[in-house]
Amino acid sequence: MKAIILFGHGARDSRWREPFDRLAELWRQQHAATPVALAFLEMMQPSLEEAVASLNSQGVKRITVVPVFFGQGGHLRNDFPVLLEACQKQYPQIALSTTPAVGEDLAVLQAIIDFSARAL
Amino acid sequence: MKAIILFGHGARDSRWREPFDRLAELWRQQHAATPVALAFLEMMQPSLEEAVASLNSQGVKRITVVPVFFGQGGHLRNDFPVLLEACQKQYPQIALSTTPAVGEDLAVLQAIIDFSARAL
Repeated sequence: MKAIILFGHGARDSRWREPFDRLAELWRQQHAATPVALAFLEMMQPSLEEAVASLNSQGVKRITVVPVFFGQGGHLRNDFPVLLEACQKQYPQIALSTTPAVGEDLAVLQAIIDFSARAL
Repeated sequence: MKAIILFGHGARDSRWREPFDRLAELWRQQHAATPVALAFLEMMQPSLEEAVASLNSQGVKRITVVPVFFGQGGHLRNDFPVLLEACQKQYPQIALSTTPAVGEDLAVLQAIIDFSARAL
């Protein structure tokens, strides 16, 4: 079984995670056969490792981690690969892969442009 | 004349801003009549105040500031209103308005879901 982890930065204010909860809910509605978990780099739970552990306990064998970040700075270029490698070492039976940040996707950027245009 | 400011967090790594530069370019291609500026909360230039100053010097009279953030945490709930109010006081001749964070928009979230589904 494959699964997806939506990986965000995290923040002190718990309300910050609302769009992430909404993303997970949208995923469940539209892709019910593929489990989804949220994970956060800092200040929020679960961590990436905790999310992988949870999916592992559900029998998941392949996980795609999607960085829900706009830009690819130090967090994604430095911190994230280290975390991912540590998870891979801890769960060698799971095939862990990752994607570029969602901010690299033209359709995501276009949706932001369209939202901005409607706001004018 | 009205204009738009795409307001992001900023980061130490200059490559972080690439999606923001791409957003501004998309905007210019699609909405050439409405000037666009980027602005950043921290670690990158220009600041919100610098962006407003630049648009003011171009004769802009109305500015919509779009927070290109996923979640609405301390930065948007606390720091951003203070910055915005300071800009408004400094440029009383400009009508400054703002929108919710782009992460509040269902179409933006759906684009992230679609990107994630294609990556599986």
